[in-house]
Amino acid sequence: MSEVFAFAIGTTVENRSGDVIDCFFPAPIKSPDSATCGLITARFKWGVHAVSQVALEAYLDATDSRSSVVGTLLSRTESPLVSVCLEADEPISSTPEAYLKLHLLSHRLALPNTLNLEGIFAHLPNVAWTTAGAIDVSELEERQLAARLQGEHLEVLSVDKFPKMTNYVVPNGVRIADTSRVRLGAYVGEGTTVMHEGLMNFNSGALGPNMVEGRISQGVVIGEHSDLGGSSSTMGTLSGGGQISITIGQHCLIGANAGTGIPLGDRCTIEAGLYITAGTPVTVFDDQGMETKIVKARELAGGSDMLFIRNGQTGQIQCRTNRKAIELNEQLHAHN
Amino acid sequence: MSEVFAFAIGTTVENRSGDVIDCFFPAPIKSPDSATCGLITARFKWGVHAVSQVALEAYLDATDSRSSVVGTLLSRTESPLVSVCLEADEPISSTPEAYLKLHLLSHRLALPNTLNLEGIFAHLPNVAWTTAGAIDVSELEERQLAARLQGEHLEVLSVDKFPKMTNYVVPNGVRIADTSRVRLGAYVGEGTTVMHEGLMNFNSGALGPNMVEGRISQGVVIGEHSDLGGSSSTMGTLSGGGQISITIGQHCLIGANAGTGIPLGDRCTIEAGLYITAGTPVTVFDDQGMETKIVKARELAGGSDMLFIRNGQTGQIQCRTNRKAIELNEQLHAHN
Amino acid sequence: MSEVFAFAIGTTVENRSGDVIDCFFPAPIKSPDSATCGLITARFKWGVHAVSQVALEAYLDATDSRSSVVGTLLSRTESPLVSVCLEADEPISSTPEAYLKLHLLSHRLALPNTLNLEGIFAHLPNVAWTTAGAIDVSELEERQLAARLQGEHLEVLSVDKFPKMTNYVVPNGVRIADTSRVRLGAYVGEGTTVMHEGLMNFNSGALGPNMVEGRISQGVVIGEHSDLGGSSSTMGTLSGGGQISITIGQHCLIGANAGTGIPLGDRCTIEAGLYITAGTPVTVFDDQGMETKIVKARELAGGSDMLFIRNGQTGQIQCRTNRKAIELNEQLHAHN
Repeated sequence: MSEVFAFAIGTTVENRSGDVIDCFFPAPIKSPDSATCGLITARFKWGVHAVSQVALEAYLDATDSRSSVVGTLLSRTESPLVSVCLEADEPISSTPEAYLKLHLLSHRLALPNTLNLEGIFAHLPNVAWTTAGAIDVSELEERQLAARLQGEHLEVLSVDKFPKMTNYVVPNGVRIADTSRVRLGAYVGEGTTVMHEGLMNFNSGALGPNMVEGRISQGVVIGEHSDLGGSSSTMGTLSGGGQISITIGQHCLIGANAGTGIPLGDRCTIEAGLYITAGTPVTVFDDQGMETKIVKARELAGGSDMLFIRNGQTGQIQCRTNRKAIELNEQLHAHN
Repeated sequence: MSEVFAFAIGTTVENRSGDVIDCFFPAPIKSPDSATCGLITARFKWGVHAVSQVALEAYLDATDSRSSVVGTLLSRTESPLVSVCLEADEPISSTPEAYLKLHLLSHRLALPNTLNLEGIFAHLPNVAWTTAGAIDVSELEERQLAARLQGEHLEVLSVDKFPKMTNYVVPNGVRIADTSRVRLGAYVGEGTTVMHEGLMNFNSGALGPNMVEGRISQGVVIGEHSDLGGSSSTMGTLSGGGQISITIGQHCLIGANAGTGIPLGDRCTIEAGLYITAGTPVTVFDDQGMETKIVKARELAGGSDMLFIRNGQTGQIQCRTNRKAIELNEQLHAHN
Repeated sequence: MSEVFAFAIGTTVENRSGDVIDCFFPAPIKSPDSATCGLITARFKWGVHAVSQVALEAYLDATDSRSSVVGTLLSRTESPLVSVCLEADEPISSTPEAYLKLHLLSHRLALPNTLNLEGIFAHLPNVAWTTAGAIDVSELEERQLAARLQGEHLEVLSVDKFPKMTNYVVPNGVRIADTSRVRLGAYVGEGTTVMHEGLMNFNSGALGPNMVEGRISQGVVIGEHSDLGGSSSTMGTLSGGGQISITIGQHCLIGANAGTGIPLGDRCTIEAGLYITAGTPVTVFDDQGMETKIVKARELAGGSDMLFIRNGQTGQIQCRTNRKAIELNEQLHAHN
């Protein structure tokens, strides 16, 4: 019996040419046990296919999920459904596959940087996301004018390859003050609050609990109890960070308007307003407060218990031993 | 006769369990005169209660407000209405009370930091704010799938304890370019423009007129004719500012990408890109340009006529006498 | 025969007093050839007027555009239509004129700073932009309460003189992750992506292709292949930049959380976190790395091949010869 890497049943939106431009998978599955693999492969084909009512009902009965919220709604619908069944984590070769992988991340079934996302840009069409749902950008002008002439309003909320996460799933235990700033494909851990100025790209992660008021770039992951201050920045590999993939450990605090171009271990703090890039020369002090060396910040990558400041008298960027990280963060989370 | 601290009639949204998850009070009242107190207490009970049509009509007649916009609509509706009548400004003990206090702030009936908001987080449920209104987060998955299967679109705009202000009240004389960034409970003074990058938390205030392109944290108040540049930051007591409550006086300018962790008096300027935290060592110059002392920024808290810069040659953070604050701000407001 | 400066047919929204508060022009025209001028002026009056069905059909036939998307819809509608026909680029004297000029910019028919926008603030009313379209702010309270009492939801997305661009036009070849951050009147060039943190005011421009994750102020234009990092700032003449109008040339990179108060030529980089204002003293190095002079940044305005950093050891702001600009940007665009 074949193993199933990922499987989902859902709905799609097509443009006038019949191309899929949006997919919604309410209950995706990743790496199911062998019994479930058997139930899936007995009724669904590999790849992307229309779902027959017979196969759907047989599957819902076999998995004893007909009475679940999703099962009940799927079994009663007359809308066309599609199944996506992937045998392995190969490069992405279709729009539904791309959507399935983004769903896996946001449903917390896969951590960032663990899925093969090769080809995702090529297989995600640029879509106008509106109050009437997904509209192909080439069809938007006509829809807008038609709505206006009927005295109706069509609100265009985003024009992008990636939709917002919360229109697909709101994982448990999170708050997202402005949902337009979290793309489908973000991994938002339990206990995490993404405030209005927070931003999470696809394939980024906040493992939770976290207070996110800054920007988590594609590929960047922040650990438990770490917080990003307002408008703080993490450099992504797509946007200036080059080849260094950035992770931030636990109990870190990136201050407001601060930023980092290097990965950090645990209990690190960057003071408000200070940006550390990989090439920044940093003067390192030991825990007795003695200056020990001057290094490029990239040599400190991944270290723990570091406090970065810029001296207000000399302008020197300094790395000191961090003493206050934990209490600061506890205070933050108390007011989550 | 008892005094009434606050009173409102409005509508609520309940989840499937009958818990209130949203309240709308079109015309809240705070500290009415004794005649009005009598009219209220004669017809409505203390606390949160369903409103009878008889009591409502008697009240509208007694207050001569049947023909007002609000009165006309309330008297004609068949929707259930609730009244909230508070005798004193006690800690919050219910969701409608929490909403009433947030309304008082945004209706400009109370200044920030003047209401007892104890218990507000506990009494505000986490809600999915959608184009179909408030939806309990536990009921969202089903609503999303049902909408998709009917070919409809349900847009989730926020998942948060606090809703956006403008869905409840738009106080007169304001512009708010992106309403998702101003929470109910913000006090937005007349003549204030909150640009796209501006942000106002609950219990924050811009007394007006102000140009707000930066972030006003919970508990922070900025005075008349003060402006926050793009992405500037004010540290809140909930997010790193500790115990210092920040106020900014009149005719101040916090430059773009700048920030402050200390309160400021009048006519202060922080140059673009400079973040002053309470612990920042600052070199102070007198109005003759002579260096007088080096102090932690917290010792300058509340001072007026201060210009903060970081010297481009030495990296030294300096506090000089401010000469240009007023003309700069007048220029800004001319283009409000 | 008179020349036509600009012409459009479209729809309007009026408040209860009959004042126009919103205009939508699907296919505006600027500086048409003399044949088209003749076709327009033969059927439409100068200024703003209601369109007769006869004139509309004659015009669509004469221009052979009856079967175009716009022509088909316009010819079939029973909605009232207006025409705006301007002979010259005069100061703005009506709301439809203001909207027409904003349309010209966003339809890429005029570059920023090439239109006479005098009077635009006075002729753009402050409007509540909602999921039910434009609502006069003075009529909003009643509409909100009425919706609530009917169990409906009225979402207020913006309260502003300027609407968002994408509800009027999405020019080809762009992505705009959060449309609330691009005002009508922005010029968004082909190949440009405006990420969630990007922001474009009216009469601002990104000539394309560009990656915009920072803020482009009113009057600011950035050239081809230049990129604005997350939360970076360009000072506008309306907000602190004074009289210097800022343009940024080609192949520039303003780093994350950085900013500029001076115009830049080509191939310039400002490192992440550094804000250059006009008055910043900058130490200039030649391409051999030798210090040559200390100048106010404004004296470097418009220069090319400049790399701005703040030295991490001395706090000195330095301008060096830029060597890496081109490769950095190519990497960015590869992942557009």
